[in-house]
Amino acid sequence: MYKSKIIQLAEKSKQASQEICALSTNVKNKILKDVAKELIKEKTAIINANKKDVRTAKAKGLSAAMIDRLVLNEKRIKEMKEAVLDIVKLPDPVGDIIETRKRLGLNIKKTRIPLGVVCIIYESRPNVTIDAASLCFKSGNAVILRGGSEAFYSNALLVKIFSSVLKKHGINSNTVSLVPYTERKAMISLLQLDKLIDVVIPRGGESLMKFIGDHTRIPVIKHDKGTCSLFVDESADTGKAIRIIENAKIQRPGVCNALETLYVHRKIAKKILPELCDILGSKGVEIRGDDKAQKIVKKIKKAKEIDYSEEYLDLILAIKVVKDVHEAIGCVIKYSSDHTDGIITENKKNVALFVKSINSSCVTVNTSTRFNDGGQLGLGAEIGISTTKLHAYGPMGLKELTTSKYVVDSDYMIRK
Amino acid sequence: MYKSKIIQLAEKSKQASQEICALSTNVKNKILKDVAKELIKEKTAIINANKKDVRTAKAKGLSAAMIDRLVLNEKRIKEMKEAVLDIVKLPDPVGDIIETRKRLGLNIKKTRIPLGVVCIIYESRPNVTIDAASLCFKSGNAVILRGGSEAFYSNALLVKIFSSVLKKHGINSNTVSLVPYTERKAMISLLQLDKLIDVVIPRGGESLMKFIGDHTRIPVIKHDKGTCSLFVDESADTGKAIRIIENAKIQRPGVCNALETLYVHRKIAKKILPELCDILGSKGVEIRGDDKAQKIVKKIKKAKEIDYSEEYLDLILAIKVVKDVHEAIGCVIKYSSDHTDGIITENKKNVALFVKSINSSCVTVNTSTRFNDGGQLGLGAEIGISTTKLHAYGPMGLKELTTSKYVVDSDYMIRK
Repeated sequence: MYKSKIIQLAEKSKQASQEICALSTNVKNKILKDVAKELIKEKTAIINANKKDVRTAKAKGLSAAMIDRLVLNEKRIKEMKEAVLDIVKLPDPVGDIIETRKRLGLNIKKTRIPLGVVCIIYESRPNVTIDAASLCFKSGNAVILRGGSEAFYSNALLVKIFSSVLKKHGINSNTVSLVPYTERKAMISLLQLDKLIDVVIPRGGESLMKFIGDHTRIPVIKHDKGTCSLFVDESADTGKAIRIIENAKIQRPGVCNALETLYVHRKIAKKILPELCDILGSKGVEIRGDDKAQKIVKKIKKAKEIDYSEEYLDLILAIKVVKDVHEAIGCVIKYSSDHTDGIITENKKNVALFVKSINSSCVTVNTSTRFNDGGQLGLGAEIGISTTKLHAYGPMGLKELTTSKYVVDSDYMIRK
Repeated sequence: MYKSKIIQLAEKSKQASQEICALSTNVKNKILKDVAKELIKEKTAIINANKKDVRTAKAKGLSAAMIDRLVLNEKRIKEMKEAVLDIVKLPDPVGDIIETRKRLGLNIKKTRIPLGVVCIIYESRPNVTIDAASLCFKSGNAVILRGGSEAFYSNALLVKIFSSVLKKHGINSNTVSLVPYTERKAMISLLQLDKLIDVVIPRGGESLMKFIGDHTRIPVIKHDKGTCSLFVDESADTGKAIRIIENAKIQRPGVCNALETLYVHRKIAKKILPELCDILGSKGVEIRGDDKAQKIVKKIKKAKEIDYSEEYLDLILAIKVVKDVHEAIGCVIKYSSDHTDGIITENKKNVALFVKSINSSCVTVNTSTRFNDGGQLGLGAEIGISTTKLHAYGPMGLKELTTSKYVVDSDYMIRK
């Protein structure tokens, strides 16, 4: 039952993707501006639809944090609108000429094109719906959104608003669509459509990634866990180091670029750990350390090995005392998740060694891990932070939602 | 039994990939030059190993064409050597700085890094072994090669030669390895190692692609079928058009960028088809056409719908007469395989429409499809032609064997 309806939906998306792949930037921006306007006009309806979701979520006993992420109010709708207007301001990557070359009588152009049909699977806040739809549309893609069941009514209305604006402008309204089923079976049907969908972008935890990987031949760009780490080297300025660690751990602990693991050079451990643990402790952070860290700060808990690869997304920090930069590099390679890893040091040789050895999507030097983010790094709005090395590694903005084709013309050249 | 040995092999590759990711261009080139030298020095041993493979292939009754692809002789070994020396001359992409930006007190650099561990699955000629190993090594990747059983002894010796050179230079010899089993079970074990292998590049037919897609969570860059097409528009110069069609179809029919399908504008069909069919017929090409084409040239066979999406890799051409450029575009989108599709016309409007509407990896204008090739388009040697839109779409050279990371340094910046 699901299956045929989902095939139909994806076929319509594919059709729409072919119609919109070469829309002018002007038309796309006009539509996005209209979407922004409609969000404000429809705010009461949005809030009412959202209330339904929140009621169900409360009845189901979802945590206060989960419900907080789900709620749409006037302030959040305004933020959604502003996010759309920010995307209007970003340059349109489609049609950009990446390379040109003349050789063998050929005029060769490598030019940016949309990916085609993008499927985004997410479980979190309903604002992702409008963000993702706007980014995909601006980059010339059709999008199939598969949001979580907890936000179903909110998502359905938001997609309806976007589609209506498209229709009003004479654009195929299937350019943006929401899968009307939230069951896993329906997701499996969707994941089988490798002839219709060009890429699946899942945002979520490891079990979702595994489920998707097990059920699809469609290319997947994962946005999964960030076990981010910092290494405090012997030569670090302890006061500045503590400020960075505190920021990376506490400023927003529930996000993927927050600090989860700290490696401390044994020669600076005694100097930095007592003060650091006091400060973090006073802000409610639970510290888990290895034997050496526990010897220096008695009150901290014992870390198990698994703690060093854990993404807590919470006020918990795992600490390990290491012999030197080499051991730190080994630990990062072993335990971190290729997301964001950094060094705090005054030693330029160690900076060079660390940066050369660590191939995470973002390597920071004397800088908070919290900066690995499309907005902060200057890409503009992002669809998320990819942990897949292929195609987009790190923040994924408009450009990363495109691919490229060669256009080769000549005066009737044949190959010798 | 396979499983633990294959896990060990991949673990060693991962270790090697970390050791070689930042090797200097100089060292890499020295090693490649030595590999080239050794190939010539060991030519008798290579030819003897290859003879074993050829004997088995003949006993198994493989076709003459297959055996021809398998054979290594002095000339082919010399070509292999020259291919390695060509890779020496190519610029090293690793370490290239793609973007730099200063903002919010951050120094942001986006820099090219190797993918890590690349697994290449191929079934064809043993020269792929040295080509692929050299390209992966030059781009800083460790490579796991899984060649076909028919070339087992040839591949094993070639990899041994490469590894010995690595060892002689003090480089981890696991940088290049060959899976010592050619059974499908062993391939499944390999495909499960998504924590150790960063990308799988299969070269082969649709059934291999399906098999791999069904058994892995590792990102896959497919190098599969090329159903390439040309559309002859009303305004085309028939003489020049025939020359291009002939070249695209005949110059090397067994490769992925050879022409398979021809769309002809109805208003030029009567003028071009008789001469075209005569010329192609005289060169041994079998023509399959729709009703309209058959009406014009009686002797041609009837095409079934499936013919228009077939990759013949042989002297066969499917022809369809179409109403106009719009119908041609519809057919290309429906039947072609996103590889190479072109238009032959003197009408600039139709060029613009065709190029805008067709998002194949290469769109040709008055040019033979045979130019969609890394060497021809100026990328240098290629690992193949990707039909996956993500990461690399079209010819995949050294640059496409890399990804990028951000390096962010600052004077102890924290996020506000």
